[in-house]
Amino acid sequence: MDVPPPQELTQPLQVPSKTLMGPGPSNCSPRVMEAISRPILGHMHPEIFKIMDDIKAGIRYVFQTSNPLTLAVSASGHGGMEAVLCNLLEPGDTALIAVNGIWGERAASMAGRYGAKVTTVEAEVGHDFTLAQIENAVSKHRPHVLFVTQGESSSGVYQNIEGIGDICHRYGCLLAVDTVASLGGVPFLADRWGVDAVYTGTQKVLGAPAGLAPISFSPRAQRKIFERKSPVKVLYWDMTVLGDYWDCFGRSRVYHHTIASQLLYGLREGLAQIAEEGLESVNRRHQECAQRFYRGLERLRLQPFVTDTYKRLPTVTSIKVPDGVDWREVVAYAMKNYSVEISGGLGPSANKVFRVGLMGYNATPEKVDLVLEVLEKALKASGWNRSKL
Amino acid sequence: MDVPPPQELTQPLQVPSKTLMGPGPSNCSPRVMEAISRPILGHMHPEIFKIMDDIKAGIRYVFQTSNPLTLAVSASGHGGMEAVLCNLLEPGDTALIAVNGIWGERAASMAGRYGAKVTTVEAEVGHDFTLAQIENAVSKHRPHVLFVTQGESSSGVYQNIEGIGDICHRYGCLLAVDTVASLGGVPFLADRWGVDAVYTGTQKVLGAPAGLAPISFSPRAQRKIFERKSPVKVLYWDMTVLGDYWDCFGRSRVYHHTIASQLLYGLREGLAQIAEEGLESVNRRHQECAQRFYRGLERLRLQPFVTDTYKRLPTVTSIKVPDGVDWREVVAYAMKNYSVEISGGLGPSANKVFRVGLMGYNATPEKVDLVLEVLEKALKASGWNRSKL
Repeated sequence: MDVPPPQELTQPLQVPSKTLMGPGPSNCSPRVMEAISRPILGHMHPEIFKIMDDIKAGIRYVFQTSNPLTLAVSASGHGGMEAVLCNLLEPGDTALIAVNGIWGERAASMAGRYGAKVTTVEAEVGHDFTLAQIENAVSKHRPHVLFVTQGESSSGVYQNIEGIGDICHRYGCLLAVDTVASLGGVPFLADRWGVDAVYTGTQKVLGAPAGLAPISFSPRAQRKIFERKSPVKVLYWDMTVLGDYWDCFGRSRVYHHTIASQLLYGLREGLAQIAEEGLESVNRRHQECAQRFYRGLERLRLQPFVTDTYKRLPTVTSIKVPDGVDWREVVAYAMKNYSVEISGGLGPSANKVFRVGLMGYNATPEKVDLVLEVLEKALKASGWNRSKL
Repeated sequence: MDVPPPQELTQPLQVPSKTLMGPGPSNCSPRVMEAISRPILGHMHPEIFKIMDDIKAGIRYVFQTSNPLTLAVSASGHGGMEAVLCNLLEPGDTALIAVNGIWGERAASMAGRYGAKVTTVEAEVGHDFTLAQIENAVSKHRPHVLFVTQGESSSGVYQNIEGIGDICHRYGCLLAVDTVASLGGVPFLADRWGVDAVYTGTQKVLGAPAGLAPISFSPRAQRKIFERKSPVKVLYWDMTVLGDYWDCFGRSRVYHHTIASQLLYGLREGLAQIAEEGLESVNRRHQECAQRFYRGLERLRLQPFVTDTYKRLPTVTSIKVPDGVDWREVVAYAMKNYSVEISGGLGPSANKVFRVGLMGYNATPEKVDLVLEVLEKALKASGWNRSKL
C-alpha cells in the first residue's frame, strides 16, 4: 500500500452537545434521535416503502397539497432547489427569479447552468416583493417559471405567496417556491395558492436531520415535466423516474438509488410529531416564540434587521450588529461559554447581522429566554454597552 | 387547513431487524450505529470540519491516493456517478462508456444528459473487458473521458483496472472508475493505476449508512475542471465550490449546503474501522469469505453466474436461478423465516440470478454459513431438488 492508514482515524469521534439556535440545522427531538438509530433497511424492502408512503402523506400535509408527485429527494435543501429547477426548465426556457438575498442568487445561477434564459426581479436585502412588482416582471418577461423564496433566511424576510400563483397562471407561467427556512413556521397552502413546485429542508421546523428535501409538483408542473422535449439534465432528480421509485404514478416501484433509511426514519418521526401537534398549532407556537423574542430584543435595545414586524420570518430573526461590536466575538463567546449557537449573516447580510433561529424542537419560550440571555451576556463580554445608545 | 393530518402518522414507526446479505446496503457495526445517534452539529462548526478532515484522510486511504480534491458528496452512490460525469464532461465532449451491465447503461444516460457525445464499448453481461478491447475503443473514439465499473454488481463481474490508466493517458483521455460495489473488497490503487476520478458508496464495504458518496479527482482531472469553458451543470456537485467547503484547495471554507452530520459520523467510524483493520486485511477477509461461499455453492451444486473465479467480484456473487425455481419465492422465504436478505437480479440480470452480498460487517465466515444454510432451505421450500441435477 502506498498510502498508510491515517493517524487521525485512530482518535475517537468527538461530538459535543450544542443548542442550535442559528438558522439551521436545529436540534431534533429525542423521538427523532431514537428513530435514526433503528436498524438499516434496504431501499426496496416493503417496510421502507411503507415508511416512504407515510412520509409522502406527511409532506402533502405540511405543504397542504394533494399533489400525487410528492416525495423527498436524497439531498440537502440545496438539492431540492436543483430538483425543482432542472425538472421545470428546458434549455432556452425563460426563468424569472425573485432575488432579495442569497437563495434567489443561487436559483439564478442554477437556472442558467441548466440552460435557461435567466431574468430577475430584485428587491433590496431585507425587503420583500409586492404583488404589483411581481406582476410587472411576469408580464414583461413572460417567463416559463417564476421562482420565489418564502423565507429569505439570509436576511430574515418573509415573502407573502398568496396571489402570486394567480398572476403566474394568468401569464401561463409555473410558480416555484422555496420554503426551506419557512415551512411550518408560517402557513403554506400549496394547492390553495396555486403553487406548482415547492421544496423544503428537513433540518429546520420539520425537526429531522439534514439530508433529505421534501418536494412536491402540481399536476400542471407534472404535465410539463412529462411533456419535455429534452430529458431532465440530472437523472438523480428526474421526476419521471424518481417518481416511480416513490410510487407517485400508481405504476410499479422501480429501483432508482439507494435511499438512506436512517434519514427516512428521522423525517417520518419529525412529520409525525407535526401531524400530532397540528400545523396550526405549530405555526402559532413559532409565531409566539418570535414575538417573545422581539420583545426581548426591544428590552435589550437591539434592532431587528427587518423593520416591519409583519415582514419578518418567525423562524429566523436577523439582528443588526450594534456599532463597535465584533460579531465574531459574540458568536464565539456564546458557543464557548454556553454551547449555544448564534449565527452571523450569510451572503449579502454577512458581517451586518446576527441570525437567531427558533425552529422545531427549539421553538419554545425556554429556548427564547435562553438565547436572549446568552446574547446579552455575549454582547456585554464583547464590550457592548447599551446605556450608550 | 384543507388537508387533514394523515392517519398513517399516528401509528408507531416499524423497523424490523434484518441480516442484509443482498448487494447493499449491508448492516453497520454497533460502533457505526452508535456514532449516528450522536448530537446534531451545524455544517459550519469547527468540530464538523475536523470530522470532514478525518473523512478526507480516510477516503484517500481507501482509494490509495494523495489527491487534494477528495471529499464525500451528499448523495447516494448514484450521486457520485453524477458528480464525476458532470464535472469532467463539457457539452460536446466525447464520453466512452464501458457497458457490461446496469451501471454502464446509467453512466451513458447521464453523460448524454450532460451534453456529451456518448460512445460505448460493450461486453456481454457476466463478462469483463480485456485491455485490448479498451485500447481499441479508446484509439478509435478518442474520448475525453473513459468510464469503467470495477464491480458490476448487477452481474457480479470484477473488472481489472490496472493498465487502463496508461492506455487513457496515451490518448489524452481521463479515466473515471465506479467502485461502489467493489471498494474494500478488492485492491484499488487510484494513484498507481492512474485513475483520474473515482467514487464509491458508503453502505457496502465501508460499513456506513447510505447517503454519502466518497469521491476523488486526480490533479489532471482537477485541472480539467478548473479550465472548463462552461460551468459545471449542477451547482450541488460543482467541485470548484464544493471543494472549498471541504477545504480541498487550501483556501477558506465557504458554505455550500447543509451537510448531514449523522451520516458524516457514520462514515467516519466506518473508515476508522477499516484503517484499524488495515486495507490488505479487509481485502483478504472479503476474498476468503467469497471463497468459502463459492465452496458452499459447489456443495449445493449451485452455479455462479460468472464462470471464471478470478472474474468474480468477491463482494457480490450472482448465482444462476435453478430451472423450475421461482426466485421470488426463494427470496421471500428467506426474509420471512430468517429475516435474511437475498436479492434477485437487476437490470440485465433480472429474473436470471440471485445476488448475495458479503460486505463490510457481514463479511464473516459465520454470515457466509448462515446465508448458505438459508439459501438451501429456501430453495428446498420452493420445490428445488438438487438430486435431479
